[in-house]
Amino acid sequence: MAVYTQIGAEAMAALIAEFDVGQLVSAKGIAEGVSNSNWLLETTGDGAGGTRFILTMYEFRIELDDLPYFLSLLDHLAAKGCPVPRTIHDRDGALYRMRPNPDGELKALALIEFLPGVSVSDPTPAQARAVGAALAGMHTAASDFAGTRDNAMGLAEWQRLFDACGADGLAQIDPHLASLVTEHLPQVAAAWPTDLPTSVIHADLFPDNVLMLGDRVTGLIDFYFACNDLTAYDVAVTHAAWCFDDSGRNFRPDLSSALLEGYESLRPLSPQERAALPLLAQGAALRFTATRAYDWLNTPADALVTRKDPMAFARRLQFYADNQDIFA
Amino acid sequence: MAVYTQIGAEAMAALIAEFDVGQLVSAKGIAEGVSNSNWLLETTGDGAGGTRFILTMYEFRIELDDLPYFLSLLDHLAAKGCPVPRTIHDRDGALYRMRPNPDGELKALALIEFLPGVSVSDPTPAQARAVGAALAGMHTAASDFAGTRDNAMGLAEWQRLFDACGADGLAQIDPHLASLVTEHLPQVAAAWPTDLPTSVIHADLFPDNVLMLGDRVTGLIDFYFACNDLTAYDVAVTHAAWCFDDSGRNFRPDLSSALLEGYESLRPLSPQERAALPLLAQGAALRFTATRAYDWLNTPADALVTRKDPMAFARRLQFYADNQDIFA
Repeated sequence: MAVYTQIGAEAMAALIAEFDVGQLVSAKGIAEGVSNSNWLLETTGDGAGGTRFILTMYEFRIELDDLPYFLSLLDHLAAKGCPVPRTIHDRDGALYRMRPNPDGELKALALIEFLPGVSVSDPTPAQARAVGAALAGMHTAASDFAGTRDNAMGLAEWQRLFDACGADGLAQIDPHLASLVTEHLPQVAAAWPTDLPTSVIHADLFPDNVLMLGDRVTGLIDFYFACNDLTAYDVAVTHAAWCFDDSGRNFRPDLSSALLEGYESLRPLSPQERAALPLLAQGAALRFTATRAYDWLNTPADALVTRKDPMAFARRLQFYADNQDIFA
Repeated sequence: MAVYTQIGAEAMAALIAEFDVGQLVSAKGIAEGVSNSNWLLETTGDGAGGTRFILTMYEFRIELDDLPYFLSLLDHLAAKGCPVPRTIHDRDGALYRMRPNPDGELKALALIEFLPGVSVSDPTPAQARAVGAALAGMHTAASDFAGTRDNAMGLAEWQRLFDACGADGLAQIDPHLASLVTEHLPQVAAAWPTDLPTSVIHADLFPDNVLMLGDRVTGLIDFYFACNDLTAYDVAVTHAAWCFDDSGRNFRPDLSSALLEGYESLRPLSPQERAALPLLAQGAALRFTATRAYDWLNTPADALVTRKDPMAFARRLQFYADNQDIFA
């Protein structure tokens, strides 16, 4: 949630000139993304592809090697009618450009389509149904995508993050957190399925990453955790992200049913996938508990970045462990 | 440079419904403003006033009592054809609304027109000329504005901020800063003119606060330091803001001439005003040295807010003191 790099009008205009999108009319740094800087650009649109774009400068974390995967995935999905932003290729046909930032460091820059829509914070069943269907549509459309990327936020990484927090660190967050992790993580790891269908997954489809107009999904965005992994795990992540209030205290069965119905309207889950959902959902809850706990302990309390409560996902973990019948 | 408050789609839609601007299509938190949260909104525009707006939630600093001054000033100037954003009044005709934020704190919210244009970082003489003319146009158009507001960032405040920094604090920034201030501030204060024309002034017209398309000014923005004070002091502030490189090391005589020519094409300076410019410019340099020095010493080094170098304006102060003939 920041813009790390100032780009003046002159530099921005020069940058835009490398794409066939017309002349720059407006550029606003937008408060999206935590590991990159983003601008909402408006152009005269003489070129192809509309008048509004999101420009991203990749600042941290994202390995440059992965950028072609993320960006060409957007193109692949958009070409199949999924509501994802197209990548605007530059005049040489490249997906992204390397440019020095004002400090002379070389940074990758990509231009993608701007999509309308707003992120809901209190979804209705109709909205959850639409999101489920959009997720299934994405999984199906990606089935012939050639790229592959390992899930860098898989089981091994949860373990590493919890280890890095340490029992003392977890106890700082909540007196019950360490025992909850110790109880569930080994069980989940031991039972983790290896024989379910895999595909490209979004892996982070929170309401923040879905643009909607009313009940319609107008954009699935922020594919920077996308990877190849168990398809049903993505359903579990999306379930954990959409079917509880923020605190994780209140499960919403109506949203759960709607999300799964919407999903299965386009891609029915196999009996094996459905049977695995209780375990995959515990995994999803562990994944976000792990990253939030690590960030909680490693973000200065006075940083402008808002720390997200790890316990909101620890509660989901407990809920999923205690209520395995919700997926029956 | 932040969005301090998260507003979900539902709350944003409800908020927008209080204005006659159509249905919400998009809302992006933008990285502008340091003491308020801003969103760039797009609507269906069934109502009056276009399809794009800036929504501001006032978080800190701004006294609520001053908001009618700032917002009605925009309306006054826009009605006279100045390139400033109109305030979008709500359905009751009010300039702003009070709404509880998600934590239940009552905050003021205002909706203003979105203006195209980008902020230049390396202005040309033609651009400086246009900015000078826009400033003069603003001064002239505001001459019959009824509101008044004292300059909260005047001489007394510079003195207070330097005192709060202390000699040790100033020495931490630069070994020569304290003596520079001690040498110039009392002189400037003693000679500060009291008999020059006054008007509404912007008081912070840096390139960041000017939107341009080519050589045309499309927007003067961020009037939150606007007040009634010496008109020529605003010329001096704008001169200090536009006629040097960022470091304050390199004066640009071509930009200086162009800015003053552009200004005088609409509002010629009186001989008294012109004679006062060397002193007013030292005052302008002291004002930004003071606020930057205070912020430098009171902003954690690891904060996401970029601290601005106080010495960039201390150098301008020295330059203006040494080169009083540039305004002759």
